[in-house]
Amino acid sequence: MKKIALVAALAATAAAPAFAQSVTLWGRINTTVESQKFGSQDRKVVVQNNSSRLGLKGSEDLGGGLKASFSLEHGLNSDTGAATGGTTFWNRASWVQLEGGFGGIRLGKWFPGSYFATADYVSNHNHDTGTSADALYATQFYTNNKVSYFTPTAGGFSAELSAAAGENATTRAFDVAVNYDMGPAHAGLGYEKKGDFTQIAIRGLYEFGPVVIGGYVQRAENTFAGVGKKDWNVWRASGMYVMGQSEFHLNFGKADKMVADDGAKQLTVGYNYNLSKRTKVYGFWTKVDNQSKGNYQTGVAGQDFSSLAAGIRHNF
Amino acid sequence: MKKIALVAALAATAAAPAFAQSVTLWGRINTTVESQKFGSQDRKVVVQNNSSRLGLKGSEDLGGGLKASFSLEHGLNSDTGAATGGTTFWNRASWVQLEGGFGGIRLGKWFPGSYFATADYVSNHNHDTGTSADALYATQFYTNNKVSYFTPTAGGFSAELSAAAGENATTRAFDVAVNYDMGPAHAGLGYEKKGDFTQIAIRGLYEFGPVVIGGYVQRAENTFAGVGKKDWNVWRASGMYVMGQSEFHLNFGKADKMVADDGAKQLTVGYNYNLSKRTKVYGFWTKVDNQSKGNYQTGVAGQDFSSLAAGIRHNF
Amino acid sequence: MKKIALVAALAATAAAPAFAQSVTLWGRINTTVESQKFGSQDRKVVVQNNSSRLGLKGSEDLGGGLKASFSLEHGLNSDTGAATGGTTFWNRASWVQLEGGFGGIRLGKWFPGSYFATADYVSNHNHDTGTSADALYATQFYTNNKVSYFTPTAGGFSAELSAAAGENATTRAFDVAVNYDMGPAHAGLGYEKKGDFTQIAIRGLYEFGPVVIGGYVQRAENTFAGVGKKDWNVWRASGMYVMGQSEFHLNFGKADKMVADDGAKQLTVGYNYNLSKRTKVYGFWTKVDNQSKGNYQTGVAGQDFSSLAAGIRHNF
Repeated sequence: MKKIALVAALAATAAAPAFAQSVTLWGRINTTVESQKFGSQDRKVVVQNNSSRLGLKGSEDLGGGLKASFSLEHGLNSDTGAATGGTTFWNRASWVQLEGGFGGIRLGKWFPGSYFATADYVSNHNHDTGTSADALYATQFYTNNKVSYFTPTAGGFSAELSAAAGENATTRAFDVAVNYDMGPAHAGLGYEKKGDFTQIAIRGLYEFGPVVIGGYVQRAENTFAGVGKKDWNVWRASGMYVMGQSEFHLNFGKADKMVADDGAKQLTVGYNYNLSKRTKVYGFWTKVDNQSKGNYQTGVAGQDFSSLAAGIRHNF
Repeated sequence: MKKIALVAALAATAAAPAFAQSVTLWGRINTTVESQKFGSQDRKVVVQNNSSRLGLKGSEDLGGGLKASFSLEHGLNSDTGAATGGTTFWNRASWVQLEGGFGGIRLGKWFPGSYFATADYVSNHNHDTGTSADALYATQFYTNNKVSYFTPTAGGFSAELSAAAGENATTRAFDVAVNYDMGPAHAGLGYEKKGDFTQIAIRGLYEFGPVVIGGYVQRAENTFAGVGKKDWNVWRASGMYVMGQSEFHLNFGKADKMVADDGAKQLTVGYNYNLSKRTKVYGFWTKVDNQSKGNYQTGVAGQDFSSLAAGIRHNF
Repeated sequence: MKKIALVAALAATAAAPAFAQSVTLWGRINTTVESQKFGSQDRKVVVQNNSSRLGLKGSEDLGGGLKASFSLEHGLNSDTGAATGGTTFWNRASWVQLEGGFGGIRLGKWFPGSYFATADYVSNHNHDTGTSADALYATQFYTNNKVSYFTPTAGGFSAELSAAAGENATTRAFDVAVNYDMGPAHAGLGYEKKGDFTQIAIRGLYEFGPVVIGGYVQRAENTFAGVGKKDWNVWRASGMYVMGQSEFHLNFGKADKMVADDGAKQLTVGYNYNLSKRTKVYGFWTKVDNQSKGNYQTGVAGQDFSSLAAGIRHNF
């Protein structure tokens, strides 16, 4: 009755069980110094976080091809030390998973697979973070109370089917991601539905030696108060040229109007110098041009945004 | 003057002292998918946290039988990533301890020994967490500003004597726990006092080969506004049958009325399949029956609760 | 195109990159039990945190003398488990740094170098923490949105030059620290400016065998509502005598009035017994005497403070 002996020991000492150290600590600090301009306001110098994070993960081989794993992932503002999610400390992930030949079952919180399969995949000049992140991609990005099934990879294809419980307090959310990889060709599909909001996007990326070209097209639909149901398109194209430790990036996106004159365009030009696989220094210039009623990135109708940035990204 | 040299180095670089890695990271992600019913409300599907946690602990051999140790323990909601304690991040423990032949002295925050010695010890189908946790056990569960003395173990007995400073802002709290282990027989006693609230409980647990039977009886007393001082009883019995990797659990508890018609009964039937020592999949059905003015588990007078659950628990 | 393959893998599984474990977890739990007295209030027993903390740090050799490093540092209240900074979880540090023969460039959040070079350096009986910390040192202690240059050490000298972006929301802050070490002699200079506030301080510390004597003098200036610009002086002297594992400490400071009768004096007598390099038990008596309008330590004009304390400090 070793189990009970353990329970007894716990009760007597309130000590924690000492399993073999099986946890990997990892993270990324990604900080820029930027000269930002919002609309006609004075240009300002900002020390800017770019989705810095800290994670813990681990897995256990259960035998017979079964594996258990977990992930906890915390977003932090590297400029101020604030938790990005406030008291939702593990705002990026907190899940437990069982996987085997059948695929995987995951419970908890994590980012939508539809996002990783599409928008995140092609904005690779700075990991789709910070002020040069894709500001136009349409998503509800619901991450709580999820249950997912991950298929095994077969013929280059893999998929994630996700449902998020509304718990009678909010609407249920559904998310589907399909990824395909075959040599230099990569493609993905994302589908997301939450209440009246629906979006579907397809993505492609191809490696021509040192040149990588990618993009996605998205169709989104939502219901707007006093207006009713509207559809709109978003698309993005990105290119990278690799020369030694240098990467040259170009990234352009466009969101059509949803209701009236509320679309936007976004352009980013970037340069990365990889000091190692873990550490780079980089710079970029990015701009969001809103139509008269568009408020992408700024939250203010018709206000444009631009930034010139230089920074350091360190993975650990 | 190595110490001063260190101080100087610190001042010059603001760097942190680099001691040998002596910290153990550990934790538990425990998540269920449940079909819950509150009173006459619609049944709902919930992704439910079951006291998931993350801890750090370490100890240092000081020679001469002396040992220093510490623990930091954080509760997290595995369904949403939220810190269970909000900005009280280390809501489960933050203590430092010195121990030797004399026993141990601990300062800081941690759960009451009286709880581990009694209620926690017998609700072992799911670590006394989540919706099938003991909802009836009477406790103030005060955990802040504590100073404790832990006796050495002698003749199978060990004890913890705890006082929590009120700091002139709240009332002092006292907590006593005694545990006894002798082969297959285990017993415990818990005593807790904070202001007008007092409770004492005794617990027994016996291992008959693959069958484990346990239970506690508790006497609690409190002062109720407009009513005065009242005593009431709580008791619980639990049984487990182990067959290979399977565990079958039955757990029943009852709280008598405190003032008038405010008692409750709780029944849980559970099944665990241990994939390994660290990982299990499990299911349970649990129900709380409140009397007309009882509000255990639901917080609403007379509202009952039930849940059918399936989940994964992974220790790391 | 290994990089792209990695991107693809990430997108497909949302898994985290698995770098070699390069993170050091470190921290300090420092807790006292104190008998505190505020003005004429009743003396009270308090379990007191003394700037307990938890940190992560790591570095990467980039070759050619270049190094990348990061630090995340969290303050915690060891008496209650609360995050000292609330949702600013990493309230002590969150930075990334590149350094080489040229010195170092650091971006993010961390404590002022001016503080480490002066006040922190001489209050070494308990790491300038808790109720016996230097209550009189004048500082704005601005830590957000910083960019610093660290010089290499040359001839015993090293310096940090820091600017903190106001981001058009607050005033810019500037901080300068110079440290000098030559055998038993140590000196430092700190300068800080934020808006109308300016302070400059110089510090010396000398090791005479087992006796260590240190101190600083500070000149501060600020603008007070309805009063205008005022200058004032602060000074502190500290002495330590080391005998085996014991340390005897004496620490005295004085702040002159800023406007009128708002100065204070502070005296601390302390004893440390080092059980090891990482763990000590200690005691101190500390007192702050405020002038009729001084509110150092207590926040209440004219209220004095004293405390008799005993505690445990454990580094890990």
